[in-house]
Amino acid sequence: MPALELFELGGRGGRRYSLFSWRARLALAHKGLAFESRPVKITDKAAIAFSGQKRVPILRRGETVVSDSWRIAEFLEQAYPDRPTLFAGPGGQALARFVNHWTDRVLVPAVGPNVAAAIPGCVEPDDAAHIRAGFEKGFGRTLEEMWAGRGAGLERLNATLEPLRSLVRERPFLGGEAPLYADYIVASPFQWARIVCAEPVLEPDDPVAAWFERVLDLHGGFARAEPARAGAA
Amino acid sequence: MPALELFELGGRGGRRYSLFSWRARLALAHKGLAFESRPVKITDKAAIAFSGQKRVPILRRGETVVSDSWRIAEFLEQAYPDRPTLFAGPGGQALARFVNHWTDRVLVPAVGPNVAAAIPGCVEPDDAAHIRAGFEKGFGRTLEEMWAGRGAGLERLNATLEPLRSLVRERPFLGGEAPLYADYIVASPFQWARIVCAEPVLEPDDPVAAWFERVLDLHGGFARAEPARAGAA
Repeated sequence: MPALELFELGGRGGRRYSLFSWRARLALAHKGLAFESRPVKITDKAAIAFSGQKRVPILRRGETVVSDSWRIAEFLEQAYPDRPTLFAGPGGQALARFVNHWTDRVLVPAVGPNVAAAIPGCVEPDDAAHIRAGFEKGFGRTLEEMWAGRGAGLERLNATLEPLRSLVRERPFLGGEAPLYADYIVASPFQWARIVCAEPVLEPDDPVAAWFERVLDLHGGFARAEPARAGAA
Repeated sequence: MPALELFELGGRGGRRYSLFSWRARLALAHKGLAFESRPVKITDKAAIAFSGQKRVPILRRGETVVSDSWRIAEFLEQAYPDRPTLFAGPGGQALARFVNHWTDRVLVPAVGPNVAAAIPGCVEPDDAAHIRAGFEKGFGRTLEEMWAGRGAGLERLNATLEPLRSLVRERPFLGGEAPLYADYIVASPFQWARIVCAEPVLEPDDPVAAWFERVLDLHGGFARAEPARAGAA
């Protein structure tokens, strides 16, 4: 079997900060699969031209190339059926897609403005300019305005978390007693926030924070091994 | 096997308008199970005293009494394993609970104010007073104020639907090619709205409306057989 390679955004000092990358990383860890990380810059499209498209993460195994975090999870489930399941059945796979849409359309936009100003300091200058332009176009505000509005931004995030909070008050993981890929989808913006921004987005007594700590502990502390951003944002 | 009885809210003219009742009804239809409906008024707690608690829906099968729509679905899945599955595996059961929390904490509060003013006209006077008081306390506005603010309320609902809309653009049901209990959870506030209020809450060209029509068609048009509210609200 050829080695697994994960092409993913790389920042300064080897940081792996992409939230979509963390979905793939945690899916790989869940399956107990070793992989080689291939960091690429956002602005280096030549490095991923082999994939026939322009976005990371991309998983490569010999001749097989899979891009998009969701399709990587589906590929891993189908290619490694004897490893721990990411979906726990077809219903779990179908509804994880709802969790994916909720995360991308509701949760990520609620986390983003609270950490965006901290991202340029984590990446090389050309990627920093690209990220600034992307956020400022997407949210219609400068990064500095987002940071200044962080109080309201955290309140909005707090309200957004209500359905997740209700769930993790009842049980340890979205998957129930044990995690599923849905947990990694939802954890990904919090891991992104943890890596890029020294100022937390969750109150320590929030049940969502306790759930996220449980995710950080999984697979031998796989996600915790990526250091949190230190110092002031 | 003793008959199945569903104790549920009953309105004027025999209308079954409760959204939680519709979750149980559609779960029963999905399993192909006949049941007898036992309508009760909100204000008639004596009728359900046998259940040891004060809320409907309640499913009774001989000596077995199950209250709460979520627990009714879990009971049906476990008690009728050879019938069509409501969850399609343990992952589907776990993540349906997230869908349940999202629906109760996000979707129902976004639908409610757009239809609340129409509910008193569907029920007996003592229940009408109870419903008015409940909504006005919960939303901090009178029913008339909610109705007057319906333009903003529908805009809020429209934004709330974004993750659901993304999903049903991709596939016919939350469950994928075929419905699961998660579809019935999310459909329940739209069925409630359809029954109590003549003014629609969805634009006809919304993919969510197309999905809801598909749910209405299921099981021989089971949910469509309950008439929509006619005339002006």
